[in-house]
Amino acid sequence: MLTYSFTNIGSDSLYIHLYKCIKNDILSGNLAAGTKLPSKRSFAKNLGISTITVENAYAQLQSEGYIYSMPKKGFYITKIDPPLYTPRSTPQPEAPKTAAKRDYLLDFVNNKTNPDNFPFSIWAKLIRETISDKSEELMMTPPCGGIMELRRAICSHLKAFRNMEVEPEQVIIGAGTEYLYGLIIQLLGFRKTYAIENPSYQKLAQIYKSYQVTYHAIPLDSDGIDINVLENCAAQIAHITPSHHYPTGIVTSISRRYELLAWASREEGRYILEDDYDSEFRLSGQPIPTLQSIDQSEKVIYINTFAKSLSRTVRLSYMILPKHLLDTFYSQLDFYSCTVSNFEQYTLARFLSDGYFEKHINRMRTHYKNIRDSFLKAIRKSSFANRTRIYGEDAGLHFLINIETGSTDEELLQIAQKHNVHISLLSQYYIEPLGTIPDHTLLVNYSGLSLEQIPTAVGLLTDIFNELS
Amino acid sequence: MLTYSFTNIGSDSLYIHLYKCIKNDILSGNLAAGTKLPSKRSFAKNLGISTITVENAYAQLQSEGYIYSMPKKGFYITKIDPPLYTPRSTPQPEAPKTAAKRDYLLDFVNNKTNPDNFPFSIWAKLIRETISDKSEELMMTPPCGGIMELRRAICSHLKAFRNMEVEPEQVIIGAGTEYLYGLIIQLLGFRKTYAIENPSYQKLAQIYKSYQVTYHAIPLDSDGIDINVLENCAAQIAHITPSHHYPTGIVTSISRRYELLAWASREEGRYILEDDYDSEFRLSGQPIPTLQSIDQSEKVIYINTFAKSLSRTVRLSYMILPKHLLDTFYSQLDFYSCTVSNFEQYTLARFLSDGYFEKHINRMRTHYKNIRDSFLKAIRKSSFANRTRIYGEDAGLHFLINIETGSTDEELLQIAQKHNVHISLLSQYYIEPLGTIPDHTLLVNYSGLSLEQIPTAVGLLTDIFNELS
Repeated sequence: MLTYSFTNIGSDSLYIHLYKCIKNDILSGNLAAGTKLPSKRSFAKNLGISTITVENAYAQLQSEGYIYSMPKKGFYITKIDPPLYTPRSTPQPEAPKTAAKRDYLLDFVNNKTNPDNFPFSIWAKLIRETISDKSEELMMTPPCGGIMELRRAICSHLKAFRNMEVEPEQVIIGAGTEYLYGLIIQLLGFRKTYAIENPSYQKLAQIYKSYQVTYHAIPLDSDGIDINVLENCAAQIAHITPSHHYPTGIVTSISRRYELLAWASREEGRYILEDDYDSEFRLSGQPIPTLQSIDQSEKVIYINTFAKSLSRTVRLSYMILPKHLLDTFYSQLDFYSCTVSNFEQYTLARFLSDGYFEKHINRMRTHYKNIRDSFLKAIRKSSFANRTRIYGEDAGLHFLINIETGSTDEELLQIAQKHNVHISLLSQYYIEPLGTIPDHTLLVNYSGLSLEQIPTAVGLLTDIFNELS
Repeated sequence: MLTYSFTNIGSDSLYIHLYKCIKNDILSGNLAAGTKLPSKRSFAKNLGISTITVENAYAQLQSEGYIYSMPKKGFYITKIDPPLYTPRSTPQPEAPKTAAKRDYLLDFVNNKTNPDNFPFSIWAKLIRETISDKSEELMMTPPCGGIMELRRAICSHLKAFRNMEVEPEQVIIGAGTEYLYGLIIQLLGFRKTYAIENPSYQKLAQIYKSYQVTYHAIPLDSDGIDINVLENCAAQIAHITPSHHYPTGIVTSISRRYELLAWASREEGRYILEDDYDSEFRLSGQPIPTLQSIDQSEKVIYINTFAKSLSRTVRLSYMILPKHLLDTFYSQLDFYSCTVSNFEQYTLARFLSDGYFEKHINRMRTHYKNIRDSFLKAIRKSSFANRTRIYGEDAGLHFLINIETGSTDEELLQIAQKHNVHISLLSQYYIEPLGTIPDHTLLVNYSGLSLEQIPTAVGLLTDIFNELS
């Protein structure tokens, strides 16, 4: 009869130890398929353990399929064929190649939020209040579009800040705009053709590519996306950033906005995705009305995020669907769970409705205006001022510096790299087919900068300019 | 010359009021395209306001594209064509048709977490600690796979609970498994054919359908997904729930696990998606080893979630990629931002590494075991006991009751509805092509139930049974 030692069984219970011993013998082939196991009683006696221990071990082996029972006969070993493994022909990669994160002296590309600018104490207070007041609601599965309290708060916010009339049912909350783009593709269709601006935020083309949908890259003129090129391509969905185009800083004019709405309403199935991502930070004048608010044909899907106004690390975005798409959305995509946790949805709802968001935005607008003004002033006073032309400084949190130089963009990037400054150039945002690409144009995202850093920043830029031909 | 009244301008500043007046005249056609506007100075004099006010109004109109300036000449009205709106031919829908949420007396379908079971005070404490210790890190954009602290904590957890050897780089954090399925489709390809279990969790087919990928529904036998049917269909990716199949409760046997791994390793491009979604709640015996842990050919993508163990309203799931897929993942999909907020990632990392998760799971396991045992005991003592056969009660948080009745499933649902009890039947989880569908089988999700509710629950079930033929 089978015998196993019960010394040195470590922290295992007796039945687990027995279970492991038998399992190892099955896997190693010592116990062949079809072999009958000893009866519980005699096995227990033989091993000096209780029948219940053997019973538990057999039950576990049976539930995992290592053994099977035959009524009135006993337990038998199952036929198991561990596959013969052929090692993968490709060699195992070393550590995966994620881009090494450098510590730059100055970063004009990644807009990390300065911790001083996040309203930590208010946010912490609101989370605390939410947890103590809302324990029941925090545990309830929200509708796929998000909790109603937050969606109502967003409607009020949009009414106050953008004069938009929106019903809470039209608001769909999601964990980031990238996630919402995916939802929109599922809603409007993988077979539709999309148009994006050229140049544009690099992720946009990557997302459409990753979803394997067709997209065209449409050039811009000074009024916004080129309406003639859009008209003559097969695109049905125009994905644009009218309030502040990234990276050129172009603000779509009101006449172009009407032309775009007219384009959309000329054919069934055409839509405009209006990405209003940093409209909160128009630093001069009043914001231009959104396409959503002047659209009378329900052709606009409006998208915005709290990533810019709060922090990129709080994943909270939303889209506003036209009313006639709601039935389709709720019948086709209602099965999706909302991707944002209830804890953050309720916290943000309070942050909005208790007026903290408005205060925060006003404070940040003043803060960013100071940074921008001081930085521009320092640039204009610098030794390289006469070699620069600055534009796009009124909307959003970046501006552009066109540099007078004989150096190529490639050289410019290398020199910046050498000085440990992370920069990006306008030419890097162009997508095939390429049109006329403006070179020597530096993008300056200044939202991560503090006032104290400006002299250093101008100093580093001076070093870079000194090396340019 | 143009004249506007400056009385009753409400809260608008003078320049905003002037801007609005001119804009309205442009949009209404009162000011025709090409019309020259008065010079700033004479207009200001005429209106009795300062030149700077007119200048600001003109600047705003110009930035929005309503007017343009001609050097040394002045400002002119732009040609704007507001589209002629044709009202949508389809009538406007009323309130969107989201399923009305009923207040059921008893709900065996939706597993809302009982607030008593969520560790609110510890969670609140950990959020507070995170906010005070990590303000810098909270604002830093995490890698696309999630913050390393959480990924390391998940690795330790998997080692301790599932004996899985995983590197942090293999762990990808996402806002819910549904989101991760979408990422997997983007990673493995839209043109691949997927296999899902039949019956299965209804969302699964909906997701694949929504992504417009081809999938086959494969029947199960008592060992798990039918390997012969899988072998003979064109599927390359098998999406399975081996630790506890929903809804049948079938646990995939060890021999079937090896057969599945052998199936996967026979052809390049085949993968198994192992959804281990409620393995924490195996209530009897030891958990069976995951396919991931016995896979030597890197053919398994393992997926799990904290939705079951914490709350569905905390959107925190993860997947473990095989090492050879990491290069592809990081080169193709690294541009995506992680969908979970840093606040929750850091909080969960502490919850895991400080040992709270283990304690919580142990407490919940005891709690659910009590609920299950009391509920089963009460059913066995009930007047309808002899008409039931209970199974699938050892793994996961639901069991099945096969009911002896002449009533149809349709009638069963209607009777339950009449008694305000929300139920689902096994037959509802079958997908085309339908095989043999077991009828009269009730799914009992008991995780939302409390001990106090059991007598009511059994009372309501008695009422339902009394009406069955």
